[in-house]
Amino acid sequence: MPKVAVIMGSASDYEIVSPAVKILKKFEIEPVVKIMSAHRTPALVHEFASSAMDTGIEVIIAAAGKAAHLAGVIASETPLPVIGIPVKSSTMDGLDSLLSTVQMPAGVPVATVAINGSENAGLLAVQMLSLKYPRLLKKFTLYKQELADKVIAADEALKKELD
Amino acid sequence: MPKVAVIMGSASDYEIVSPAVKILKKFEIEPVVKIMSAHRTPALVHEFASSAMDTGIEVIIAAAGKAAHLAGVIASETPLPVIGIPVKSSTMDGLDSLLSTVQMPAGVPVATVAINGSENAGLLAVQMLSLKYPRLLKKFTLYKQELADKVIAADEALKKELD
Amino acid sequence: MPKVAVIMGSASDYEIVSPAVKILKKFEIEPVVKIMSAHRTPALVHEFASSAMDTGIEVIIAAAGKAAHLAGVIASETPLPVIGIPVKSSTMDGLDSLLSTVQMPAGVPVATVAINGSENAGLLAVQMLSLKYPRLLKKFTLYKQELADKVIAADEALKKELD
Amino acid sequence: MPKVAVIMGSASDYEIVSPAVKILKKFEIEPVVKIMSAHRTPALVHEFASSAMDTGIEVIIAAAGKAAHLAGVIASETPLPVIGIPVKSSTMDGLDSLLSTVQMPAGVPVATVAINGSENAGLLAVQMLSLKYPRLLKKFTLYKQELADKVIAADEALKKELD
Amino acid sequence: MPKVAVIMGSASDYEIVSPAVKILKKFEIEPVVKIMSAHRTPALVHEFASSAMDTGIEVIIAAAGKAAHLAGVIASETPLPVIGIPVKSSTMDGLDSLLSTVQMPAGVPVATVAINGSENAGLLAVQMLSLKYPRLLKKFTLYKQELADKVIAADEALKKELD
Amino acid sequence: MPKVAVIMGSASDYEIVSPAVKILKKFEIEPVVKIMSAHRTPALVHEFASSAMDTGIEVIIAAAGKAAHLAGVIASETPLPVIGIPVKSSTMDGLDSLLSTVQMPAGVPVATVAINGSENAGLLAVQMLSLKYPRLLKKFTLYKQELADKVIAADEALKKELD
Amino acid sequence: MPKVAVIMGSASDYEIVSPAVKILKKFEIEPVVKIMSAHRTPALVHEFASSAMDTGIEVIIAAAGKAAHLAGVIASETPLPVIGIPVKSSTMDGLDSLLSTVQMPAGVPVATVAINGSENAGLLAVQMLSLKYPRLLKKFTLYKQELADKVIAADEALKKELD
Amino acid sequence: MPKVAVIMGSASDYEIVSPAVKILKKFEIEPVVKIMSAHRTPALVHEFASSAMDTGIEVIIAAAGKAAHLAGVIASETPLPVIGIPVKSSTMDGLDSLLSTVQMPAGVPVATVAINGSENAGLLAVQMLSLKYPRLLKKFTLYKQELADKVIAADEALKKELD
Repeated sequence: MPKVAVIMGSASDYEIVSPAVKILKKFEIEPVVKIMSAHRTPALVHEFASSAMDTGIEVIIAAAGKAAHLAGVIASETPLPVIGIPVKSSTMDGLDSLLSTVQMPAGVPVATVAINGSENAGLLAVQMLSLKYPRLLKKFTLYKQELADKVIAADEALKKELD
Repeated sequence: MPKVAVIMGSASDYEIVSPAVKILKKFEIEPVVKIMSAHRTPALVHEFASSAMDTGIEVIIAAAGKAAHLAGVIASETPLPVIGIPVKSSTMDGLDSLLSTVQMPAGVPVATVAINGSENAGLLAVQMLSLKYPRLLKKFTLYKQELADKVIAADEALKKELD
Repeated sequence: MPKVAVIMGSASDYEIVSPAVKILKKFEIEPVVKIMSAHRTPALVHEFASSAMDTGIEVIIAAAGKAAHLAGVIASETPLPVIGIPVKSSTMDGLDSLLSTVQMPAGVPVATVAINGSENAGLLAVQMLSLKYPRLLKKFTLYKQELADKVIAADEALKKELD
Repeated sequence: MPKVAVIMGSASDYEIVSPAVKILKKFEIEPVVKIMSAHRTPALVHEFASSAMDTGIEVIIAAAGKAAHLAGVIASETPLPVIGIPVKSSTMDGLDSLLSTVQMPAGVPVATVAINGSENAGLLAVQMLSLKYPRLLKKFTLYKQELADKVIAADEALKKELD
Repeated sequence: MPKVAVIMGSASDYEIVSPAVKILKKFEIEPVVKIMSAHRTPALVHEFASSAMDTGIEVIIAAAGKAAHLAGVIASETPLPVIGIPVKSSTMDGLDSLLSTVQMPAGVPVATVAINGSENAGLLAVQMLSLKYPRLLKKFTLYKQELADKVIAADEALKKELD
Repeated sequence: MPKVAVIMGSASDYEIVSPAVKILKKFEIEPVVKIMSAHRTPALVHEFASSAMDTGIEVIIAAAGKAAHLAGVIASETPLPVIGIPVKSSTMDGLDSLLSTVQMPAGVPVATVAINGSENAGLLAVQMLSLKYPRLLKKFTLYKQELADKVIAADEALKKELD
Repeated sequence: MPKVAVIMGSASDYEIVSPAVKILKKFEIEPVVKIMSAHRTPALVHEFASSAMDTGIEVIIAAAGKAAHLAGVIASETPLPVIGIPVKSSTMDGLDSLLSTVQMPAGVPVATVAINGSENAGLLAVQMLSLKYPRLLKKFTLYKQELADKVIAADEALKKELD
Repeated sequence: MPKVAVIMGSASDYEIVSPAVKILKKFEIEPVVKIMSAHRTPALVHEFASSAMDTGIEVIIAAAGKAAHLAGVIASETPLPVIGIPVKSSTMDGLDSLLSTVQMPAGVPVATVAINGSENAGLLAVQMLSLKYPRLLKKFTLYKQELADKVIAADEALKKELD
């Protein structure tokens, strides 16, 4: 089983982050879930980021709010691809988190998804791993079909309701 | 040589996009560069996106401005990971492009980099491919070292200048 | 009876969209209401958009939130006028939906109404169809008078209350 | 020849507005071009808007910047469909003009195009008139093909340049 | 008693607007309160604005939300000073109303107060009228003293609470 | 001759502010032009604001950029009506200046005009003074007519150009 | 015991401000808590700011919302370092308060913390005072360790929960 | 001589940062100027931040643009007060830098000054150090007087020019 880390800045982010964990489990990817803070526990983040690859982790998902530095700080210390989830906090409607996550300088990309977009963070990790693990590609294609089927079912339900 | 597509919405985006192409070449990845428009040539985009995987492309980079739908439209028709570059246009300072690229609904992620962040789009493709091609990992680590060395050299140059 | 399509990206948009449907019914225009997603069911959207004119639809209303591509994607595949309703989602207060809907590139206009402005989307369809169906013009003029009368009645009610 | 009014708030908007006029001429629609200001010449706007339909005008395009009320004021006095072009002024990067144009209250829609999006304003008028004048539909389909051909030509030119 | 008009775009604005009315009454200024809509009842607004001065009104307060044209439209038809209250609506957190009210073109000023700032709209009217009615100046100075006294009382209450 | 103060935060604001001065002179109002800074010379501002009324000034115009406190600070120390001009500075496109000027708390209004809207600041002062000085009312009505005539002339010039 | 003033614009800000007071007490710094308004009680603010240093206060924390001038006004009248807390009010999600607090002109800095960031305001005061009072440095280092320990404990709790 | 570090993310920030250095020299504070990047040279930043206090540095100024993490990362590894300068970059007009710098989570404050506000960063460092070094207090008071004198001189120059 491939491993993907799911890192969040504080325990209160878990509710936002859990859809990413669910997606990983659904695709039989092992989630390595951790709380650590770029600002409060920088040494832990440093230790984690610089050794993540050696522990078999292949992709890192990081979620943080406000001046959201977590994804960028991790990306600066690992060659692994890092996916950033900007978490909406109590002010600025997520714009601060989004800009702090996505506007990275040349040399250190963070693959940013939508504000609170955890499910997509999980799926993006799946897509990256699909390059190496062909079984994931098949599952991902099925998953997209499931999503399409749900839309089609909703359309049919609405049609009935309106008739 | 692995292949990465670099798609842009109009010829005028080429200047913004070219750093991504340069990065790919530097890492001996074959760039497949194309101009196609989600809005003006939807059939071409459909044809490209739905067959990209079969032509050996492994990652797709898409750059567009304003109501930037190109990356999202491609992502909706391929299981390959799609990297979006929001291109700053003549109004709204890139905010429209950023939001149109990053705020994707659950199910169809676009790995978004900074506004006009082409170099990072190229590097993110490299990182994704590194999962499968170990030689890229080594090169990427060297590249990050080069960037660090440039910062160190700039620091030394400044020190001399200030003395 | 002329036909106007009302397309929404997900079932959860129905509450926002229904005032448009009500307006169409009030003006004896047949609403063709469908759920389909530019990102999750692109083939359905393609099929719908490219054949809409042939099925007798004359105007298309499309509602979507976040990176709201639905109206633009439809507009790229039909010569019919497309009206876009930016739907406010859980972050960014509707700004992302608005910019993703209105900032279309030259060649593919989307007639954008206010955030969550479904009633106006319906009325704009009525105005467009009035060019061809004179009976609608008369009804529309009456409708505006009704709105004016409501304002006048509210003014009188307030006057009484304040006396 | 059908008639479409193109109204702008001040002479300095003409440069922004002229692509709309060009599109109309290309489609053999008679442009009725006027400068009038919702704020400086309200009586003229009132006179124009309330009589536009009687003079044979079928669609009205209105362009204004800053607290851009022109399109809304016209829409309040005519049953004709009104297309609004938010003009970028010297501050706020067009956001003020966009919000002032698009955020219309229920009952009085303005079909808003992109900031400075005059070409699309012209094309949207063409699409509206196509409902009534079938010859326009054919021309519009050709025009979209021309745009697509330009993208394809640009793609080929780029391919040659890169080889 | 001097007269100040307080105009609002719809009945639902009354809750926001009423502090202005209260201030006027407190200063023994007669409030002329009316609901009328720049977009739904333009003729009424025209009639009101162009005759306001003749009916003895000396200052006009206008409150509206979204594409808030009411204050600007009134200002375009009267030489009286017009005070605009941008009303926060359900989207965009008041920014649309603020920009639509304040960004008026040269020649037609609207004296804009804070979003939902009705009390200040009333006080600004008082200040303007103070230029002509010296008794208001005295009252206004007392009112400011009352406000200061409340702050001082709150400070003392807090001090006690904290001891 | 009535007196209106025109206060700016720094010498570099003079270019922005001068249209207000020109308007005042045109209306034979004496402009009292001063540079003083709420932050750098608070004592001067205090002295000026608290004595302005005694020196015969009847309205105060204040222009400042960034965290634009000048108008608010003056308003807190005088019963005279204060007009605020938010000056666009080198960052944030005037939004910071606008919000710092207009979002005043209840009790201390600042009559805010558009970003860099000096001409309107002058005209608003004229309108306020017209309540007391009837000769200004007549001049103001003429001035609005001049503006209207310019629009009409521009319209005619354009008509000729297009024929 | 060193003294730090904690000033707020109105009693309603106390809930937001109290974490700063708690931090100060925890570090055995005497908080001097006061309500005073830059706009409603300018004389009190002037008196306080110009004499604060003489009463033994060494750092001033000021919290205000909307056109938040309090911190800037105090900073203009004291050489003491001033820390500004932008308080989120009912509109604009704190952006107005942030820009009004942080965008100070050259010469009069306000050390701005996050919107509603009172705890950090308290800590920043501690850090400033640590330069002079070495005992605070030790306590601050312990405090940061406590924060880190909480993150570590949360991480362990989550690990248990997920197992 | 006290020491203050002035750290910038890249050589291109030097022009923006140099006013801070000038201020420090003017106040006879030794500036320790360094280029280092939170993202490209994280180890150097870690080394610098964790040892800064031991090398005698008392305050740290950090300037960075876009997803500006430099100040926050440094603050996470030192008990010294950290002053953040948000640097305006080529997109988003400095808003991204401002939010990334100021919106720090509880526990790790960054004393943020205006976008590109280097002079104030220097002065804020002076104010912090004044708590410990009384000679700086005197100089700072003189400096503020100089600024006031310049405003007064500008006011007099303008008066002459206008006469």
